[in-house]
Parts: sequence; C-alpha cells; structure tokens
Amino acid sequence: MPGNSFGQAFRITTAGESHGPANVVIIDGVPPGIPLSVEDLQVDLDRRRPGQSKITTQRDEPDVPEILSGIFEGRTTGTSIAILVRNRDQRSKDYSDIQDLYRPGHADYTFDAKYGFRDYRGGGRSSARETTVRVAAGVVAKKLLAQAFGGQVVGYVSQIGDIRADVPDPSAVTLEQVEKLPGGEPNIVRCPDPDAAARMVALIDECRKDEDSIGGIAEIVATHVPAGLGEPVFDKIKADLAKALFSLPAVLGVEYGIGFGCATLRGSQNNDRFIAGGAVDDHGQPAIGTQSNRHGGMLGGITSGMPIVLRAAIKPTSSLSREQSTVTRHGASATVRTKGRHDPCLLPRFVPMGEAMVAIVLADHWLRWRAQCNSADA
Amino acid sequence: MPGNSFGQAFRITTAGESHGPANVVIIDGVPPGIPLSVEDLQVDLDRRRPGQSKITTQRDEPDVPEILSGIFEGRTTGTSIAILVRNRDQRSKDYSDIQDLYRPGHADYTFDAKYGFRDYRGGGRSSARETTVRVAAGVVAKKLLAQAFGGQVVGYVSQIGDIRADVPDPSAVTLEQVEKLPGGEPNIVRCPDPDAAARMVALIDECRKDEDSIGGIAEIVATHVPAGLGEPVFDKIKADLAKALFSLPAVLGVEYGIGFGCATLRGSQNNDRFIAGGAVDDHGQPAIGTQSNRHGGMLGGITSGMPIVLRAAIKPTSSLSREQSTVTRHGASATVRTKGRHDPCLLPRFVPMGEAMVAIVLADHWLRWRAQCNSADA
Amino acid sequence: MPGNSFGQAFRITTAGESHGPANVVIIDGVPPGIPLSVEDLQVDLDRRRPGQSKITTQRDEPDVPEILSGIFEGRTTGTSIAILVRNRDQRSKDYSDIQDLYRPGHADYTFDAKYGFRDYRGGGRSSARETTVRVAAGVVAKKLLAQAFGGQVVGYVSQIGDIRADVPDPSAVTLEQVEKLPGGEPNIVRCPDPDAAARMVALIDECRKDEDSIGGIAEIVATHVPAGLGEPVFDKIKADLAKALFSLPAVLGVEYGIGFGCATLRGSQNNDRFIAGGAVDDHGQPAIGTQSNRHGGMLGGITSGMPIVLRAAIKPTSSLSREQSTVTRHGASATVRTKGRHDPCLLPRFVPMGEAMVAIVLADHWLRWRAQCNSADA
Amino acid sequence: MPGNSFGQAFRITTAGESHGPANVVIIDGVPPGIPLSVEDLQVDLDRRRPGQSKITTQRDEPDVPEILSGIFEGRTTGTSIAILVRNRDQRSKDYSDIQDLYRPGHADYTFDAKYGFRDYRGGGRSSARETTVRVAAGVVAKKLLAQAFGGQVVGYVSQIGDIRADVPDPSAVTLEQVEKLPGGEPNIVRCPDPDAAARMVALIDECRKDEDSIGGIAEIVATHVPAGLGEPVFDKIKADLAKALFSLPAVLGVEYGIGFGCATLRGSQNNDRFIAGGAVDDHGQPAIGTQSNRHGGMLGGITSGMPIVLRAAIKPTSSLSREQSTVTRHGASATVRTKGRHDPCLLPRFVPMGEAMVAIVLADHWLRWRAQCNSADA
Repeated sequence: MPGNSFGQAFRITTAGESHGPANVVIIDGVPPGIPLSVEDLQVDLDRRRPGQSKITTQRDEPDVPEILSGIFEGRTTGTSIAILVRNRDQRSKDYSDIQDLYRPGHADYTFDAKYGFRDYRGGGRSSARETTVRVAAGVVAKKLLAQAFGGQVVGYVSQIGDIRADVPDPSAVTLEQVEKLPGGEPNIVRCPDPDAAARMVALIDECRKDEDSIGGIAEIVATHVPAGLGEPVFDKIKADLAKALFSLPAVLGVEYGIGFGCATLRGSQNNDRFIAGGAVDDHGQPAIGTQSNRHGGMLGGITSGMPIVLRAAIKPTSSLSREQSTVTRHGASATVRTKGRHDPCLLPRFVPMGEAMVAIVLADHWLRWRAQCNSADA
Repeated sequence: MPGNSFGQAFRITTAGESHGPANVVIIDGVPPGIPLSVEDLQVDLDRRRPGQSKITTQRDEPDVPEILSGIFEGRTTGTSIAILVRNRDQRSKDYSDIQDLYRPGHADYTFDAKYGFRDYRGGGRSSARETTVRVAAGVVAKKLLAQAFGGQVVGYVSQIGDIRADVPDPSAVTLEQVEKLPGGEPNIVRCPDPDAAARMVALIDECRKDEDSIGGIAEIVATHVPAGLGEPVFDKIKADLAKALFSLPAVLGVEYGIGFGCATLRGSQNNDRFIAGGAVDDHGQPAIGTQSNRHGGMLGGITSGMPIVLRAAIKPTSSLSREQSTVTRHGASATVRTKGRHDPCLLPRFVPMGEAMVAIVLADHWLRWRAQCNSADA
Repeated sequence: MPGNSFGQAFRITTAGESHGPANVVIIDGVPPGIPLSVEDLQVDLDRRRPGQSKITTQRDEPDVPEILSGIFEGRTTGTSIAILVRNRDQRSKDYSDIQDLYRPGHADYTFDAKYGFRDYRGGGRSSARETTVRVAAGVVAKKLLAQAFGGQVVGYVSQIGDIRADVPDPSAVTLEQVEKLPGGEPNIVRCPDPDAAARMVALIDECRKDEDSIGGIAEIVATHVPAGLGEPVFDKIKADLAKALFSLPAVLGVEYGIGFGCATLRGSQNNDRFIAGGAVDDHGQPAIGTQSNRHGGMLGGITSGMPIVLRAAIKPTSSLSREQSTVTRHGASATVRTKGRHDPCLLPRFVPMGEAMVAIVLADHWLRWRAQCNSADA
Repeated sequence: MPGNSFGQAFRITTAGESHGPANVVIIDGVPPGIPLSVEDLQVDLDRRRPGQSKITTQRDEPDVPEILSGIFEGRTTGTSIAILVRNRDQRSKDYSDIQDLYRPGHADYTFDAKYGFRDYRGGGRSSARETTVRVAAGVVAKKLLAQAFGGQVVGYVSQIGDIRADVPDPSAVTLEQVEKLPGGEPNIVRCPDPDAAARMVALIDECRKDEDSIGGIAEIVATHVPAGLGEPVFDKIKADLAKALFSLPAVLGVEYGIGFGCATLRGSQNNDRFIAGGAVDDHGQPAIGTQSNRHGGMLGGITSGMPIVLRAAIKPTSSLSREQSTVTRHGASATVRTKGRHDPCLLPRFVPMGEAMVAIVLADHWLRWRAQCNSADA
C-alpha cells in the first residue's frame, strides 16, 4: 500500500532524501544471468547527473553507485539487487531559512498537510534527487529488454518554451543523436534537431540569467517491442506508462501517438490501417503492422509491435532565484528566494529519467507476459 | 500481477466480456456502515447506459445491478461487495464475420498477439462494456468521499472536434448542469455550456450520418478534497489519477491543471502563489490555498486542497459503419464494416466512467492516508 | 491491502456470505487455452458440498456454478474468470435469536470488535461457505498444474480424535482411495486407511449424537512438482502454503515433512541425504533427489522435486447443539444452542478445501517461476 | 510478484547475501513522528548477533546499522526508511570447496534448480544472515505497537530436543526473564525456565562437541493487542502470522493456542467461554474476554483481545562439522563437512527473528484496520 514501490514482476522500491546520507533502490524480480556492472549503471547516472553542463544545476554529485547484492561474478543471480548512491554535495544550510516557508510550486505545503511536518532540507523525499536510483534501475531494465527482444528506449527533448524540434520520425532518433551534436560536442539539451538544440540552449541560458525557468516537452520512444505486452483492463500498457511518467516530478501531461490531437479528428482520419508485412524488423515482428502510427504502438492497452511514442509536458522549475511572494506555515505573508542550486530547465536531465521509467514498465510487462502467456514451456 | 484489479486500500477487481453472460466487480476495503442500495448504483449506471439518447449506441441494456454480498440491512458491512450486471442485448451473430478480421483501431490484433486467440464477439474483454461495473464501483467511492469530507467528483465534455465549451470555472460546474439543459431537457452530450452543447450534438449527428465518428476532450473535477492525499514518489496522486483515466478505453492523453500549456511558460508565470485563508470552504479546508490553480490541485504528488482538475483526450470511435480496409489474421487484404451497434462519439458516456475512476483513486488515497497519517488515534 | 484476494500471478478474489444471495470468485492470471467446463468445477464442488453424507451438515446446497466470463468455446481466454455459486438453502431465521449473542469459538465477537456490527445470519463472511468458490478456483489451478507438469494434489484425513490412520507413503495415496472404500462405497470420511475410516465415522456419529463435535488432522500431498518453485525469502513456498492452509477456517496448526517432530532430532538424524537419480518420475524429475523426505519437498523455501507433504490441525466444530454459556454483546451472561445445521466434524469436507488452496499456491509459484526464471525464451 | 517484500500497509523489502557487501531493508508505510535511533535498532540486533555466546556461531559481526533515510531530527518522517547493515567477517574462502556440492538440508540444490546457478559463498540469499535487517525492521514495528496501544511482543525458547520448559503463563513472560537469569547473568539460550535453560545449554554444548546440532520449539507471545485486527478470509491474522514465521529459515511447523492438540478434543472441551470484563488490562481491553485461551487470541482470523500465543518448530542446523554424504551438482557421490562457522542450535538467535516478524504483522494489520475500520475521523 505505501507508495515507494513500482512494478509488479519487475519491481523497484526506493528510499532516500535530497539531503540525507544516500538514495537506495532494491530491484526485485530480475531474471538470473544478466551481465551487470557498476560501469553499466554509471552511463545513465552520468546523463542524469547534476552539474553536467552549464544549463543544469551546479550541485556537484559524482553519483557513483555501489551494488550491495544480487550480483555474483558479474551476473544477476535472480535475488534482489540493492544499489546505493551516496549524497556528497548536500548543503543543508542553504535551506535553513525556508524551514517555515512554503515555496511556490513545491511540495512543502502538501508534505506538511500530509505528515504534519517535513524534512525541510531541499525537497526531502520530493526532490528529483530520488530519481537517481530510478535511473540505475532503468539500466537494469534496459539490459533485460535488449537481451530479451532487442528492445530499445530512447528519449529526447522535443520542445522548450516555444521552440519546437523538427523530428520527422521519432522511432529513428538514436542515442548518439541525443547525446552528441553532429560536430561531436555534447548535446547538452538532448534535442536531436541541432538547430533547435542551439536555440533551446540560448533560451534556457536567458531564463537562467533572468532568475527564471522554462518548461518543455520530452518524447520517449521504445522500439523493437513485440506485440502482445500489456493487460486489457486496468493495467493497460498505456496506463502503466502514463503512471510511470506522471510519477516523475514536474510532469503535468502525458500523451501517446496522436495524443490530444485526436480530439479534432474523425474516426476515418484517425484509424491506422493494418497492413501485412509492413513493419517486419530484424526480429521478425510484427508480421502485421500499421501504415501509420497515430495509435502510438498500443491498441486496447496492448503493444501492437509498432514503435511506442510518448510525450510528457514538464513544467518550468518551481525554484527561482528571484523573489517570490508566499506564506509561512502559520499563514503570514512572506517572500522566498531559492538559494539552493537548481536547474533553469528540467528537460535535459529529464530524458534519462523518462527513459528509465518507460524501460521499467516494459520490462515489467515482458515478465508478466512470460508468466501468463508464454506457451513455450506449457 | 494480473491486470484486472485496481487500487490498494479501496480495491476493485472485475470480470466480464461484451457478449458473455455478465460483468461483475468485487469491491474490497470499503469501510463498514456506508448506506448503499441498488438505486444508488442505478443513477450512474443510467448515465453510462447504452441507448440513452440518439447520439449513443442503440444497444439496449437496462444495466440493472444485483448486489451479491457485503451489504446487510442497507449498509456496507466491511466485507467484499460483489455487484453483478447481466448482459441482455448482446447479438453475437453481428460479429461472426469479423472472426478473422482485424478491425482498425480495435484490440483484435493485439489480443491475438498476446493470447494466441480471442473471444471475437464484439470487443470481448476490451469492450467498453467492462466499464459498466467500474461505474457501479465508482458510486460506492463517491459515497465514501461525500461521507468522509464532502468530496464531489463531476465530469463533463469540454470539447468535441473543434467545438470548445466555454467553462469559466471548472470547479463550479454542477452535476445538474451536466445532466440538464437550462430548459430542463436532458443534456445528452453532457457539456455544461448550452450553446456549445447544441453544436456538439449537431456535429455528432452529422458524423453518425456520415458513417463516421468524432473525438473530444472531457474534464473531470474533484472538489472539497482535503490537502495531504497521495504519496510522494511512485504513487503520486497525479500518477494514480492518470493511470485511472488511461485505463479507460480510447484515452490518448491526460493532463491536469495547466497541463501541456506549461511547456511554454516560465516559472515566474506558472507558479501559483500561496495565500492564507484564500479558499476556505465549508469544511474549513484549506486554510492555506493558492491564488490561481495552474497546479490543478496537486503538488509533489499530494493534494493541495485546491480543486483537482483533469482533462482526458478521447479518440473517435474506431468502429465505423463505412467500409475500411484492413487485413485478416492471415495477412490477406480485406475490408471491414462494423455492423454491431456503436457510439458515433464516446464522450457523452465517458463522463460517468471518468468520474468513477477519479472517485476510486481518491477513495483509495483517503484510506491510505488514514492508515499511515491519521493521528487521531495513534 | 484488503484481505479478499490471494496469490500474485494466479490470483483469486472472492465475495459472499453464508446467507446472502451468492458467493463469487474472480480468478485472474490464468493462461489462455486451458479447457474448462462447469462439469470440471462440479467434481470438487460436490466433494465440498454440504449434505453429502450422514456425517456432514444437512444444509442442502446443490452448489451448481455459473461461469460468467473468461471462457470462450470451452477454453480459458486469458482474461479474468468469474464463477458464481448461488446460495439456495439458507434459513436466516435459524439465526435471529443469536443476533446479540457471542457464540463460543465463532467470529461473532471479533467481527463486532472489528467492524462495529455484523451480518449475524450464520457466520456471514466468516462462514466456511465462502470456501465454495475457493474450491472452484482450485479446480482451475489443478488443471493448470496437470497440464504444465503433470502435477497432482491429493488430500485426505489422517486423524480424527485419537484415531490415527496408517498411511505408509503419503505420496502414494490416490484420489480413488480417498473417495471410495475398497468395496466401492463412498469413503465419506475421506481417510485412505479403510479400517481407521470406519472407526472415524463411528466416532463422528457418536459426537453428533452427543450434541458435540470432534477435531482432527488432514494431510495434503502434492506430487510431480518440479524443483525450483518458490522464493528464497518472504514468499518461501512453505510460507505461502502455510498461509493458504491457515486462511481456511478452523486450522490451528500447519507443519510439513517431519514438522514438529524436528524439535527432538539432531541434525545428523534429520538431514535428508541427496542421491542421484533416486526419484526420477515419468517427467524425468528430479534427477537429484533425497533418500528420505523429512524436508517435505521444500528446502530454503523452494521445491526440491520430492513430494510436498503438509499437515493441518483442524479444531472441532465450534457450533454445538448442546447448550453453552456465553455473554451477549452487552456483556450479560447468556446461553446459546446452535440450531443452524452444522458439521459434527469439519475434516471430511476440509479435504477439497485444503487441496484447492495448495493447488492455487503451486499454480501461482509456477507462473511466477515462468516470469523470472524460465529461460526458454530469453 | 517477486518475493523480497512483506506486508501491505507496513511493508518491508530486503536485499543482501551472507557474503556480499551488506544487507539492506526499506521499510515503507511507517507513520510519521515515531522516535527512532540507531541505538533503538542495536538492542535487537545484538540479541540476533552471531558470536554473542558460546552456544552460537563464532562468526564475529558487530551488525551496526546505518539509517539512510526516513528519519529527520530523530523522528520518522513518513517516507521510506532504509537501514543498512554491512557484512564484516565473511570468509568466502571457507566455502570455495562446496561450490559443486549440495549440502544436505541446505538450499544449494534448490537454488541451482530455480536459477540455474547460485552464489555459493555461504547460503547466499538463503542464509539466515538476511534476517539481520528483518530484526531492524521489527524494532520499528515494535515501537509502533507500543505507541499505538501498548502492544508488546516477547519470544522465548520453550523446548530444545526433549527438554521442555515449564511456562505456566506464556503471556506473563517478560523480556527481562528471557534475557537474564535470576542471578543476573545472560540467559544465553533465552528460555524463561531457569532450570530448563541450564539443561538446554548443556545439551546444545554436547551436540556441538559431537559435531552435531539439535532442534527445538520457540514461542512468541503478543500482549495488549486490541480485538479487531485481521481480515476474515485470506489475510486472517493467523494466516499472516504463520506465513511470517514460516518465512524464517528452518521453521517446519507453526501452531497457535491449543494448536495440534485440538485434533483430539471435542468442541465442548475446546471452545473457550466468553466472559464479561474478565481480562481487562491497563488499556481497558477487552471488556469481553474468554476464560481460557485455547484459541490463542484469534477467532475467525481476527484478534480477540486475548494474548496471541504462537509456537514454531525449528529444525536442527543443517550444517554439521561432521562428514555427511551427498552428491555433486553433476550427480557424483561425495562427502561434505561444513567448515564455515555455524550455530549448533538455531533457537537462541531465532527468538528476536520471530518477535520481529510477529511485530511486523501486527503493525501491518493495525494500519490496515485504521484504513478501513477506524471511524474516529469518518
């Protein structure tokens, strides 16, 4: 019943606060025999790491993980995997004077309303710092998807403010494009349209100088996912993916395929036409595909074999260096100015978080499918 | 692990197909002592019922529920409540010639991919008919919310095609407005803007005559919900509400508060300003509110005491009377024309479904809050 | 969180009271393609049925099940299966004068303490009548076990009062022996030792005439279960089996293998010696077995491939026709005499209940094993 | 679905192996505001610690816990609590030559059967070392019970081999008696009958010298538990308690109240007589009690307010210093002699483990009761 676990067959449970000693995840249900090392984890942890570029928070966390269990001689054993990431650069004193203040857009007030008091050092448990270990768990999920069916999950930034990236085919975007610009320099905003990327960086920088922040949209795409994953009623794959993305901080909207665009379409315009053999990939799936992908790879809550395309709207960072008016916990008027380090735009670091959550849902449903529907052994 | 249950503390489990004998729900975790009758259930079942107006499917189902357990002398006993709704007007022969066809936009193909075969009479388990008993369960949740804190959940249609309703204050919309037009006649499209409602009805009728269908957007609003419900990490209230809405058929997008609109805002524009005493209602909550409600009543995954405002995008009905091209399960080209009865627009009947799912999530989190955070007795 | 569901991957949820309209179970997670009919269910329902012999309660219930969903053309579809069994012979007026009395050994007082009031017609939800649909679900589990690996679950009565059956090899007892005496007449006490069976029937009859009841011990044995099922820590297979049996009414003790006898043994006496090839069965498992089976088929919480042997102690029926002293809900002294019909000994009808719960646990862990450990497809 | 979590509302998830870096638990659902320190945890960890006396294993582990999250200024915050206990004295080389051997009574074979390979250093995940963090979590549960209703959980050894302790009233045994002999020296065997305790120590010592081990029985008693906890059907409190105890290593049998003794009793002998006011304690509960306690404090799966009395049978340690015959993983005959350090009798260190699991179940059901049945705020 408590809310610190996610997934059914591939299940993660997390703990940790932004200014406590560490964050930790226990990953349960991982099949035995999957190669896994600290180095594997580090790749995505570095993509999520604070301080990675001039457009992210300057909190400096190396985020080096320690694997405490579940691995023997470099492979998963099938028992629960615990991964620990210590906090190094927390500066609790930055927060001492917000003890009684409710920062706009933050969870300060709602935590007090729920629990009666709160750990006021940074966001405590509501900080995006808790996503560190989600990203580590996402690496394990990604390895499982790749091994099981060549599945891949790639995310990128498609919009910041009014700047929209031009991405003709979401399923063709590569990790390489997301991480590197054509010239080889780091793509610090993680937008695969280089021209838009440059303008996005400039906009974020402008907001930062303005002591302000800016919102945007990220897209997460999963490819090579076999048809047949997901449950027809409550645990529709779209429902679990939406919950996964909405469980990340600052997400205010999620859509897939044509999304909100469906509101103005007629059925004859919206239905994707089934075709035979149209989208066969290296794994031979699906023999039956669709000519277009307005359905975003999911029909009736079950994957169709077409690419899964999701979009999440992320609000502008609530923490601002500029002064904002608010109230104290006693209802008195006050002003607040966030002195802690924070991101002027959440999108660049959201990408690995979103990928992780999507990978975890797909890994979960893959194992669930094996439990019920895999007839290879029945 | 299987996907036919929803909720943790207030938990529903369902079964039933569109053309089987019945649909049934077991509701578990309901507190003892809540008055409940078949008549209570009938109200929302009638709002969801097929054949209720000229703009819905003409399948004629009385949808009279039978309560099998959990009620004694008119009150809930605390034990599991089973509710049965029999199918009466299924016409399986309508479907015999689609046995091998994959209807565009339907789950025919994905069910075959998942299970190896399917109940091809109508949508089987993927039919919106399975929502009948969700609506019944939603009535129980609504009664709990009303009794516990005066909570209310009201949904309505805000957009059909390009027609957008003018709803100045979503939290002020009443069930009366949703169900009746100012003149007293039934508001068959469930849009609280009478002018837009008339145009929506005309548009739906036009689509129907065209052998086509049309999409739209519904809004679901929960008021008088106390601050403090929801969990900070995976089971954020926004995440569970999104999963709830995405678990309904045909939902392609969900947003809350400013939603996707946040992408183009700066933090200084988006943050809602906390104020003291600003939104005190009859129940005295919240003593602290916000001046605006771009955050849609949820911060950090926890309710803020402000109205919860959600929007769901619903695709146009996939079933069309007009001919569509597709393939058979063997990959051969074919055409399909849906002879079964179906809605030209899903929105009017979606409203009670969306309300039910939102009410169930809130009831669930209310009980979860009582388990962990209620200190009245600790 | 509520307590009316059992199992993870093979999951049942039940509702129903002894004197309400019906009992119902929803079975979730059943693999598609398993043949299932009402006749299959009836076999075990008849073994559990009240009124089946002179030594059981005379309440006359045909217990004819109705399958509401999840079956198409005689096979499971993979969607949730609902099974309904109506109550026919409830005589609520038998109970009207115990409304305020706390029957010794019953749940009357504890229900009042938990819920504040109770459905006082018979045991309400605490009646063994709720096991009707567990037995139906157990049939589905048994079919899965048989199909998947030739697994079988057979229970029998091993002790009533001081009469102990002589059962040299629990894993050799057949359903035939449990149901029929050597002469072909029904084995109404379900003890595979015909001599003990006759004495048990006489003892039960004596207790009945005495307006008294008698306790006993049942054994449940599962054979042909592959090694490797169960989880190493909390969901040890022994732990889930024990919970399953303790979840049945009147069970006061559970042990497996040598059970409580281990307390007086030394390790050198208790350890079973591993041997190669010693117990290969038709399915070729296990290649490695043990010479003896004091470990009851489970080591470290995981099946060893040897027969699983469980014993449950069942208390004498609490309902007595003779007068017993008690108190009212207001604390006043009173006497009570149970006029409702009841079993003088619970054991004969316990056998199919115990089998059902054991089969459900094994089916659950089989699917869980497939999810995580089956590498046929990974 | 995976098996490394336990509990619903008060939920623990664990990871760790006997010879890996550490064991860790995440405790979820703990109410906010409970004082908790490392020192609190240390008390029971010291009672479970290896090397604590001459009759336990000589592995020397300080078992000093580190709290990683969920505590702020000495109190629980309501967010998930992670506790880390590092392994210090693992000597993996002790185990290198059992890599291919199946130790009798251990999980070596069943782990290989389940996962295909195993971490062969000690018991890996099947080692009792994983109970370290269960004991830490049990401390948190005990604090909750004490604060909520003055609940206490005390365990002790009641039998080793043929030596039975004389314990006239299980509910009167104090922690002091369990931990100290009348003279003040440590009660290293944790038996509250000093005379039996001395003989038990001598017997264990004799077994140790014999390169052998010995089994026994532990009793766990919970007092001051209010009536009304537990669920009527699957999650009967007796069922969850039994699962909790069976989830501990080496437990072969569990009973409560009269237990297996019920088999030979008649109903008129077994039923406990309800009386008014008979057992009122300091907390005023229960106003209605029973004259005797053969029902062990639980009726219909729900607590009755009388002391909860449980007994667990624990097998003799499987590891023996003497030579035992076995087979290798390839089926070849072999002998094995355990050189790793191990307990000659598991009982003395089982006591805090059993208490912890019982406390966790009671805490869980207390929170579950609050969710559904607490009407103080409804």
